[in-house]
Amino acid sequence: MKKIRLFTPGPTMVPDDVLLEMARPIEHHRTGMYREMAKELHELLQYLFQTKAMCLTFTGSGTSAAEAAIVGCTPAGHKALVVRNGKFAERWAKVCETFGIDHQTLDIEWGFGATGDDVRKAMEADAKIDTIIVVHSETSTTALSDVEAIAKVTREKGAILIVDGITSVGALPVKMDEWGVDVYLTGSQKALMLPPGLAFAAVNDRAWERIDSGKTPTLYNDLKAYRKSMDTFDAPYTPAVSLVRGALCVLRKIKERGVESIWAETTLLANATRSATRALGMKVFATHPVDSVTAMVVPEGVDEGALRKTMRAKFGFQIAGGQGDLKGKIIRFSHMGFVDAFDTIGAIAALEMALEGQGYAFSRSAGVAAAHAVLMDAKN
Amino acid sequence: MKKIRLFTPGPTMVPDDVLLEMARPIEHHRTGMYREMAKELHELLQYLFQTKAMCLTFTGSGTSAAEAAIVGCTPAGHKALVVRNGKFAERWAKVCETFGIDHQTLDIEWGFGATGDDVRKAMEADAKIDTIIVVHSETSTTALSDVEAIAKVTREKGAILIVDGITSVGALPVKMDEWGVDVYLTGSQKALMLPPGLAFAAVNDRAWERIDSGKTPTLYNDLKAYRKSMDTFDAPYTPAVSLVRGALCVLRKIKERGVESIWAETTLLANATRSATRALGMKVFATHPVDSVTAMVVPEGVDEGALRKTMRAKFGFQIAGGQGDLKGKIIRFSHMGFVDAFDTIGAIAALEMALEGQGYAFSRSAGVAAAHAVLMDAKN
Repeated sequence: MKKIRLFTPGPTMVPDDVLLEMARPIEHHRTGMYREMAKELHELLQYLFQTKAMCLTFTGSGTSAAEAAIVGCTPAGHKALVVRNGKFAERWAKVCETFGIDHQTLDIEWGFGATGDDVRKAMEADAKIDTIIVVHSETSTTALSDVEAIAKVTREKGAILIVDGITSVGALPVKMDEWGVDVYLTGSQKALMLPPGLAFAAVNDRAWERIDSGKTPTLYNDLKAYRKSMDTFDAPYTPAVSLVRGALCVLRKIKERGVESIWAETTLLANATRSATRALGMKVFATHPVDSVTAMVVPEGVDEGALRKTMRAKFGFQIAGGQGDLKGKIIRFSHMGFVDAFDTIGAIAALEMALEGQGYAFSRSAGVAAAHAVLMDAKN
Repeated sequence: MKKIRLFTPGPTMVPDDVLLEMARPIEHHRTGMYREMAKELHELLQYLFQTKAMCLTFTGSGTSAAEAAIVGCTPAGHKALVVRNGKFAERWAKVCETFGIDHQTLDIEWGFGATGDDVRKAMEADAKIDTIIVVHSETSTTALSDVEAIAKVTREKGAILIVDGITSVGALPVKMDEWGVDVYLTGSQKALMLPPGLAFAAVNDRAWERIDSGKTPTLYNDLKAYRKSMDTFDAPYTPAVSLVRGALCVLRKIKERGVESIWAETTLLANATRSATRALGMKVFATHPVDSVTAMVVPEGVDEGALRKTMRAKFGFQIAGGQGDLKGKIIRFSHMGFVDAFDTIGAIAALEMALEGQGYAFSRSAGVAAAHAVLMDAKN
């Protein structure tokens, strides 16, 4: 009978009506009905990414869309720069290794984001670099990179910019066309408040020109196959129809509310959580913190594993720990998707209970009151 | 995309898995499958009411079960005493009027519950009274009557005791056999966290003896018809099969957790809410407050209608106002069913936001911190 509340930075909570929509009987995907759904989905994705570019839907995780973008945009003769500032950026470097793509990494301390200058310097040091891969919101470290500034640099230098927007699209300001990003991608189980299983990539004409200039060394994640099927709003391979139906349902809600309003709400929840963190005598981990997920440094004397276990088993809040070198050192709270001010206050209330249970010294309810104050100021 | 949280004292929030269980295809009710469900439901209801008495399931609201109990237990020659301390007690007096049942009322100030002495005095003043009708938790005024003490009196005097447990059964201590209550009834949409549509009545042998001594002046709400169908675990009229399936699902959860643990949790949420009320400089309405729902007196200068509207439209919390003479004077928060500590903290946080919006002066987050302290003390 315990209420379970997902505060993990993916998967996130799915609204009841979206779950019910996805429980409806399956339609066949080689039908007019599916094509109508795919057409509307395409329009809504263009709104989401703020672009006129073609938006593709993959049945796969965010990694499938990222692999498709990376291998598609780096045919022989091109060189990629992977901005590496966390666990997910590491994965994109591994894609390059796996496919034998000429690349180098720009290593940035975990907790920091990349700036336009970082990318400019790296490009000026190696004139062969013509493809930049950057993670907008590095979920593992909760650091934000300055995509707008980086896009200015890549446009100026004629390079292709691929942005992993897996925990940014639908949560943080994303303006693909205005900024000049060439490929933006995301997954279903983050700000889109769906179960995992779909990924989306918006690909502009500059990117298509690059993709068409070479041969793509993969079948399932070949962007060209997806583009071809879009002539008739079909899918190249069997799509996850229930999830597509859920995606339509969610994207209609997002458009109705206005994506800018969601961006503002995400910032508000992040501000409330950061304020609570400080009020509890704790530190926000990231130096360049992102608004879609907040990492708190686990205080000395507090056992991170036991803390998360108590949060989940006793209070029903599932939060995330750290990954890689950050394992045991941070805890992470998502602000994406179907989570609101009152869920967030509840999460801080539960965190305080769990901290008190470990004997951590703090002023009781200070975190809750700090979060409440931020939210109250904004809502009244 | 707003989250809606029901804090009304019925209907209450329905768990997702119960909703999904009820969405399953309908089975026919004249089948072995239905009879197996009805048999298990009967055992679980006996656990819920803490009784060995027969437990009947009505397709109807709580009022249908109350009418069945009242008209069944008062054939010609008997006289009822209706303890009238709120809106629902008034309704049971109206049942007596409608059916021409010899009765009188024992009027008790709203906000107060009835004691054993209250009932003893009324019975000693009129020796004809042999049937007592009392509301355990008077939802309209949030007052608690002392059913255990009243049952001692009715047992001593050989009277039949009918208890409306609509907002008590499954929320507050209810021990039908130990206390000696003859008919206990409840509805589905309160502590049982189901949608409205079912009512339940536990009827002991003393009550059946009375019922069998006369003719029942109604068909649909005739307890004898329900008893007869229980020989084969059937229903006398078409039952709401989906809701019966939901009831099974919920009652299994309640038994698994242990109903005593739910009673304790309800008290805890009530204590937290009362503590928050005082910390905000407000008053708990009832003099004998019940734990299943808390009424706060709306402070002077605060517009009750606007307050509730803000709570719902802006923050997604649906609370209840006052009924009858209490309209505009109180607001009510439920502690029944699928609501937990963190929902309750959220409700107080939203109440503070709404109060601040009306310019009510209080120490910010004092209510939230007071509720949090009560919950924290109990959980750690």
